[in-house]
Amino acid sequence: MEIGMIGLGRMGANMTQRLIAGGHTVVAYDRDAAAVAASASGGAKAAETVGDLTARLSQPRAVWVMVPAGAVTDAVIDELADILDPDDAVIDGGNANYKDTMLRGQRLSERGIHLLDAGTSGGIWGLTEGYSLMVGGDKDTFRRLEPIFQTLAPGPDRGYSHVGPVGAGHFTKMVHNGVEYALMQAYAEGFELMQAKQHEFDLDLPAIARTWQYGSVVRSWLLDLAVRALEDDPGLESLAAYVDDSGEGRWTVNESVELAVPTPAITAALYQRFRSRQEEPFGSRLLAALRNQFGGHAVRQVGHGDG
Amino acid sequence: MEIGMIGLGRMGANMTQRLIAGGHTVVAYDRDAAAVAASASGGAKAAETVGDLTARLSQPRAVWVMVPAGAVTDAVIDELADILDPDDAVIDGGNANYKDTMLRGQRLSERGIHLLDAGTSGGIWGLTEGYSLMVGGDKDTFRRLEPIFQTLAPGPDRGYSHVGPVGAGHFTKMVHNGVEYALMQAYAEGFELMQAKQHEFDLDLPAIARTWQYGSVVRSWLLDLAVRALEDDPGLESLAAYVDDSGEGRWTVNESVELAVPTPAITAALYQRFRSRQEEPFGSRLLAALRNQFGGHAVRQVGHGDG
Repeated sequence: MEIGMIGLGRMGANMTQRLIAGGHTVVAYDRDAAAVAASASGGAKAAETVGDLTARLSQPRAVWVMVPAGAVTDAVIDELADILDPDDAVIDGGNANYKDTMLRGQRLSERGIHLLDAGTSGGIWGLTEGYSLMVGGDKDTFRRLEPIFQTLAPGPDRGYSHVGPVGAGHFTKMVHNGVEYALMQAYAEGFELMQAKQHEFDLDLPAIARTWQYGSVVRSWLLDLAVRALEDDPGLESLAAYVDDSGEGRWTVNESVELAVPTPAITAALYQRFRSRQEEPFGSRLLAALRNQFGGHAVRQVGHGDG
Repeated sequence: MEIGMIGLGRMGANMTQRLIAGGHTVVAYDRDAAAVAASASGGAKAAETVGDLTARLSQPRAVWVMVPAGAVTDAVIDELADILDPDDAVIDGGNANYKDTMLRGQRLSERGIHLLDAGTSGGIWGLTEGYSLMVGGDKDTFRRLEPIFQTLAPGPDRGYSHVGPVGAGHFTKMVHNGVEYALMQAYAEGFELMQAKQHEFDLDLPAIARTWQYGSVVRSWLLDLAVRALEDDPGLESLAAYVDDSGEGRWTVNESVELAVPTPAITAALYQRFRSRQEEPFGSRLLAALRNQFGGHAVRQVGHGDG
């Protein structure tokens, strides 16, 4: 098929490459001309503007948007809304908040343009292994663009599906990422416990992780990544204990509150990330102060070790 | 090799079968004569007592113990301690508490008998897929019995390892099961959120789970099991929301306390299991009572719906 790709960051550029390898024609655009040139050298047709990109596509058009969630996505979709024609389709493959997606779908549908929200998992491994795609939106449009999803997915019969109306794709991807937070936290806690016992048992963490990869109940792709990380640096001493988050975990917890569904493990995983980024958190200072107030317990002064 | 198997429950019987298929000679004993007869019909040599079993093995002997943790394991190991000779080896493949295992190792070593603690994961799938084995104990004894581990593991070069001294195997298996609790909880929370949104998005949970199996960051063996369960019964309506636990999760949380290592996700997973088994928990009654006391909020009477 023929498809436009807007946004040639790590994800968009890799997807462009996978689509071209799968025999599709990709017209590619990014604000960064160097990114466009890089994709063009890999076989994409270079576009100089969003308008240029849409002009190079035959109707009904399909434009994949792979840009950061939020204002950037809004700007691109608004621009497309002005240029595209009825029956054209926009696929938002980013990690948008599903409620924003529902509003965007509404805006586009008023002009007869279809929005598909394709929650996309796979990260930098997607290029070679394929992406997992959770697609929301009009089912006929999904069927029309299915060859695209079949190429991006790990196989033509697996790893992609139509999950519901506009918003359902990004909702599903949001929950996927919330689950991911708690899965990662599970391994993090287990390996931290074993690391704390190393002085007694001299545990070989990379060997244990490798043992778990075969036949155990906890085997998973994230465990495979843990094996790689622990083999590179068994003490993980090259890394700071600082963990970022990029929004979907927060949205999942917000959704838990909205739906009144308890998600204690996902919530704990998110909060542990917050905690990892705090130096001398105020809450711990207050606890120290209270212990001192009621019991005369020793406190530590900042920067002075034991008080 | 030649090995004795004491305990022919689901795990012991399957391991006996896998060992025989791998070319080993297994002398099998269980308190239940029918279980012995079943293993014998599969090629094991039947033993009538523990003493009979050890008499049929040539020295240095190897006896795998696959019985419930706690008193049963203690009784079997005490009996073996009286019968076996120096240089013989006992392998405890059950889910013993690692501190008990360290004491048992001490008792056996006073008689020159080696104890290997082989934390074993794989459940009913182990028969065909192989078991993941985390082995603690004397390294020379481990090397001597390595052909046994190679047969039980998914492959001769994978899924088993010597992780440390006596106790380290069961310690590692305990942490493995703690991680398993939190991994399961992660999926449980994610699917419960999606189930709560089904009225709006008509989400196809089995299809979403299948999509996650390929290319996604959350793919895992537990997810594969979730697919099977959801395909059998998408609403899981045939199951009560009652979740048992068999000890290792509690021990993992106890260990977190002992080592002062926070494990909020594993702890939350354990507590959710406790909560699932409580009807009308007292804590929730107290919360209802307090809301009523300070704010006159409505309460529900037991068995009478809204109060």
